[in-house]
Amino acid sequence: MNIESFLSKHSKPALQNDPPGSWMPQLPEKCIRLSSGYPDPSLVPVEQLNKAVNRLLEEEGDLPLHYLGSPRIDQLKTQINHRLKERGMDLEEEELLITSGACQAIDLIARVFIDEDSVVAVESPTYMEALEIFQNYTNHFISIPIDEQGLQTEKLEKMLEDRSAKDMPLPRLLYTIPTFHNPTGTTMTAARRKHVIKLAEEYNFLVLEDDAYGDLYFEKPEATLKSLDQSNRVLHVGSLSKVVAPGMRIGWVAAGKEFTDALNWFKKDLDQPFAQASMAAYLEQIDLNERLYTLRTAYQQKRDVLISALEEHLPDSVSWNVPKGGYFIWVKADDLDTAHLLDQALDAGVAYVPGKYFFLPSDEKAAYLRLSFSYASEDELVEGVKLLANVLKRS
Amino acid sequence: MNIESFLSKHSKPALQNDPPGSWMPQLPEKCIRLSSGYPDPSLVPVEQLNKAVNRLLEEEGDLPLHYLGSPRIDQLKTQINHRLKERGMDLEEEELLITSGACQAIDLIARVFIDEDSVVAVESPTYMEALEIFQNYTNHFISIPIDEQGLQTEKLEKMLEDRSAKDMPLPRLLYTIPTFHNPTGTTMTAARRKHVIKLAEEYNFLVLEDDAYGDLYFEKPEATLKSLDQSNRVLHVGSLSKVVAPGMRIGWVAAGKEFTDALNWFKKDLDQPFAQASMAAYLEQIDLNERLYTLRTAYQQKRDVLISALEEHLPDSVSWNVPKGGYFIWVKADDLDTAHLLDQALDAGVAYVPGKYFFLPSDEKAAYLRLSFSYASEDELVEGVKLLANVLKRS
Repeated sequence: MNIESFLSKHSKPALQNDPPGSWMPQLPEKCIRLSSGYPDPSLVPVEQLNKAVNRLLEEEGDLPLHYLGSPRIDQLKTQINHRLKERGMDLEEEELLITSGACQAIDLIARVFIDEDSVVAVESPTYMEALEIFQNYTNHFISIPIDEQGLQTEKLEKMLEDRSAKDMPLPRLLYTIPTFHNPTGTTMTAARRKHVIKLAEEYNFLVLEDDAYGDLYFEKPEATLKSLDQSNRVLHVGSLSKVVAPGMRIGWVAAGKEFTDALNWFKKDLDQPFAQASMAAYLEQIDLNERLYTLRTAYQQKRDVLISALEEHLPDSVSWNVPKGGYFIWVKADDLDTAHLLDQALDAGVAYVPGKYFFLPSDEKAAYLRLSFSYASEDELVEGVKLLANVLKRS
Repeated sequence: MNIESFLSKHSKPALQNDPPGSWMPQLPEKCIRLSSGYPDPSLVPVEQLNKAVNRLLEEEGDLPLHYLGSPRIDQLKTQINHRLKERGMDLEEEELLITSGACQAIDLIARVFIDEDSVVAVESPTYMEALEIFQNYTNHFISIPIDEQGLQTEKLEKMLEDRSAKDMPLPRLLYTIPTFHNPTGTTMTAARRKHVIKLAEEYNFLVLEDDAYGDLYFEKPEATLKSLDQSNRVLHVGSLSKVVAPGMRIGWVAAGKEFTDALNWFKKDLDQPFAQASMAAYLEQIDLNERLYTLRTAYQQKRDVLISALEEHLPDSVSWNVPKGGYFIWVKADDLDTAHLLDQALDAGVAYVPGKYFFLPSDEKAAYLRLSFSYASEDELVEGVKLLANVLKRS
């Protein structure tokens, strides 16, 4: 039997793209993972999450194991809203929708707002998984380059002016990671943030602000786009994946009630009761500000270790940024094809993500690679860079 | 700002339907819940799940708290495949896709195979939540009535013949709950199962077999549609919600590799690592057959209690079926409008689900209601029926 004749119109073109997760090859054993955007294993609060589950089930019995019923599901919303308030966002309860990680949030937003002929504006480069999600809905993209001050809003404006003048379709949505951008690590300046909001109002598009890394700063970042948003067109997406643990799959959308209502319609009323209640029980037993301080200090130190190793071992033809938060360092290795080199690196025992996955096919640049200082230990960071340096020098 | 101008073409009509979960009103405190398709609280394995989490985190540390990495995620697939083998389905590992409950499975199937002009055939009545999901994708439905032998396949055949003769679009997919149907409790006979498969081959449509209750039999049910399927067109959906706990959100699709690949494309590579690994750790520490035996015995007894109470207390004008498994009893109260009566029932202290939610608007029948014997205690079942009887007699 042939599946082809049964595929829906929108799933057919999506299935022509690269399969999901193709940036994540099977790694050889003992490979140093400078590729993984995973938290540091020693910073995942295993024991405290275990304690939280024990307390949850002792106190609530079967409640968090049904479809609905655990009071801690509402409590989780309050806890997250409280945290968002510290980031300058003062939300009503109904303006927050809990999702299964930031990815479900991005997928729901695409599902509700993106047609197959909608234009989506993205940064170039951008988060490969978001690109993959949007490509399930449309093939119409406009990419705006990033520099060390983040999204180049003057180029965004120029594009909007041009398309408007030529009566070409304007983007329905801009996807941006303004703070500790994945993969480049850059942060958008305050002036450019205001410019984005102004353009969104003027040209009437939505802004999806992906704030996965905003809490992990080494220098306090600018105000979120959502906190600057007077016209309720920013959909702010966040997650506890980097702050607590990705395996719990707790993310959210913070947006106007009309928006969260529509997203919830397609998410339906089914939550992840056990995961959500466990997370609420965990958050109630810790001091989140203290934990964030610990994470910031630890990741800043790991960033410094990775940067020092790059300075010491990498050839002069290679350059990189120094991020002020987040997980990633974006490396430029002129004249090299990093996708091609990956096999050699894996053979040598070190993994990175080739830059090409972060670009639209039309923009593809071969010379970049993403390194993560989050997952590997400090010793591994140094050793990994040495291995990588050998591979780059041989090429 | 008006959300309207941003909505995608397919989300606009969907948002015209009743909001999700409208069958589930806020219940007064201490209301007896004959409405809830929840497992019996005393049968939710709270302590054993707690022990499973403890062992998981002790043995695996941070692994199940990352995006990927816990070996128990693969183990869960093996455990579920083993169980499906006992139901007559011998699957390759890649023919099983784990989902976040059966609802995500149904939603993914609709997303990949249903266009806005696709026709979906459903039983009448059918599971209200599945209806709600399909209505997010299409407004074209054909309903086939159910009798005490399940879906009336001769009517299905007649419909297919008619539409074929008139060159009208044939259904792309049939959604059926052949075993312990929700809400009617009926089970499709072996002859009709074969007939469904024959018709699906002849008229080239897919079959979504929802088997949420198949393991909870009081009399061993017929072979699953999937086990009769020679042409790989049955997508078999199941879940551990009724067998272990719905709050863990573990469901699946069992289907040909081409199908699970396409579904996984849109599900993406993100699983629920913590929930899945916890479930695997739970399953490895129990004897599932013994647990199923316990559940079957307990729910059969609760069915008997509810049936006896109905016989004793309900007026003669009211009739019902006696299901051979599952959670539900479908009650017919001639000349009454059960949606209208619900407020009185809630005031009296008992909740049920009005029949209308299980029908397409075009088929809507007012005289039915669904009772569940799963959640309320035996005492509550009897008390609930007494309260319901008073409401019905007053009307």
